[in-house]
Amino acid sequence: MNLNITYKNYSSWSLRPWLLMKEFDIPFTETLLPFAHSSALSEFSADKAVPALVPILESEGMVIWDSLAIMEYLAESYADKPLWPRESKLRAVARSAAAEMHSGFSALRSECPMNCRSIKIIEPSDEVMRDLSRLASIWAFFAAQDKSEGDFLCGEFSILDAMYAPVMWRVAGYGLFVSTEFSRWSDAMRALPSMEEWYQGSLKEEWSIPKVDNIV
Amino acid sequence: MNLNITYKNYSSWSLRPWLLMKEFDIPFTETLLPFAHSSALSEFSADKAVPALVPILESEGMVIWDSLAIMEYLAESYADKPLWPRESKLRAVARSAAAEMHSGFSALRSECPMNCRSIKIIEPSDEVMRDLSRLASIWAFFAAQDKSEGDFLCGEFSILDAMYAPVMWRVAGYGLFVSTEFSRWSDAMRALPSMEEWYQGSLKEEWSIPKVDNIV
Ligand SMILES: N[C@@H](CCC(=O)N[C@@H](CS)C(=O)NCC(=O)O)C(=O)O
Ligand SMILES: N[C@@H](CCC(=O)N[C@@H](CS)C(=O)NCC(=O)O)C(=O)O
Repeated sequence: MNLNITYKNYSSWSLRPWLLMKEFDIPFTETLLPFAHSSALSEFSADKAVPALVPILESEGMVIWDSLAIMEYLAESYADKPLWPRESKLRAVARSAAAEMHSGFSALRSECPMNCRSIKIIEPSDEVMRDLSRLASIWAFFAAQDKSEGDFLCGEFSILDAMYAPVMWRVAGYGLFVSTEFSRWSDAMRALPSMEEWYQGSLKEEWSIPKVDNIV
Repeated sequence: MNLNITYKNYSSWSLRPWLLMKEFDIPFTETLLPFAHSSALSEFSADKAVPALVPILESEGMVIWDSLAIMEYLAESYADKPLWPRESKLRAVARSAAAEMHSGFSALRSECPMNCRSIKIIEPSDEVMRDLSRLASIWAFFAAQDKSEGDFLCGEFSILDAMYAPVMWRVAGYGLFVSTEFSRWSDAMRALPSMEEWYQGSLKEEWSIPKVDNIV
């Protein structure tokens, strides 16, 4: 299996399946396509008839695009590992919150782009404040669910945490606050060995995207 | 099971799981929350700690939000019915294209909002043209897959068709063209008895959203 990603420093969508595969010991190779600094991504995707977006997983002669579809594919392919929580009710709400992230939080995503290497304190807009308040509700909702021990949203680390992983960087990186439950989760995420590996990768990259770096 | 939706005439996200459940004979009741004309949706969702967006499925004492999460939940709950294609490779690409719809096609979605009752010929913007061209590539991609007989994307009707169902209305309703493969699919979708039932429902609704009705 080969996972095509882009810059570790900036690519929030790439982080999600990468972190999931690392945490669940799923072996894979990775290829970084520096889309803002070369045409590698558009050539790759034109050739494979997929959208010019990463992550893209190559597996069993197939090309699987989109972070959520990749993670669902992995959950099926490694059914012996609890990529989603085993309990069906918890899994149903975990899928709901994962899908909400997949199509929502547009203010947080656009005003606070992921930038692992950098910390900038901003004055959040009303729209970002609404996104943060929704995050607090989601964290409170999962805190109240019947689940296994652990600091992750469903107790043990799962696809749901992978889906929200970039939010950890956004909240920390722009000096924002969500809730104490969120902060506990955020500490647990930051302490994952694979998160540190991603961060170290981001420090080594020499590419820069000025539009993101210059947010004040 | 109770499916909370909003206006049949306008609510593209509501249509998706509704059509899926009808086509697969999954019994359910429905509740229409007229969000633009009453506070029913925001009251309902504040009470249940879910986002103020429909569709929302109530099942087994749970509240499941987001169209894609609802459809994944139904696929698991009715595992004897082929809600996703049975073949694992086809399912992986079907999930990719479904997720692409879930988070993409923003130009088509915002410039050509679903309006089942109405036909308006527009001059599509460059962004809409790009979305139409991506649709043509997706239809060509699925035409080339190894799959069962049938006019739907994976041969037989599946979640993937439900996910793209509103696109049928958008393309027809604004006088757009995608490809002959798409047109064949569109005819098959329009001929589904449950699609006709949805359409008849939209004709009976007395609510109007002027912002959508007045697109020229
Ligand atoms: N819905 C997609 C979104 C993927 C996406 O937007 N990826 C960004 C990188 S984080 C990208 O490839 N951008 C390339 C471009 O915009 O040209 C997913 O979940 O995978
Ligand atoms: N990602 C969500 C999107 C749901 C959505 O945007 N629903 C619209 C109706 S089609 C809605 O509830 N709008 C209410 C509002 O904007 O206040 C899903 O897939 O269910």
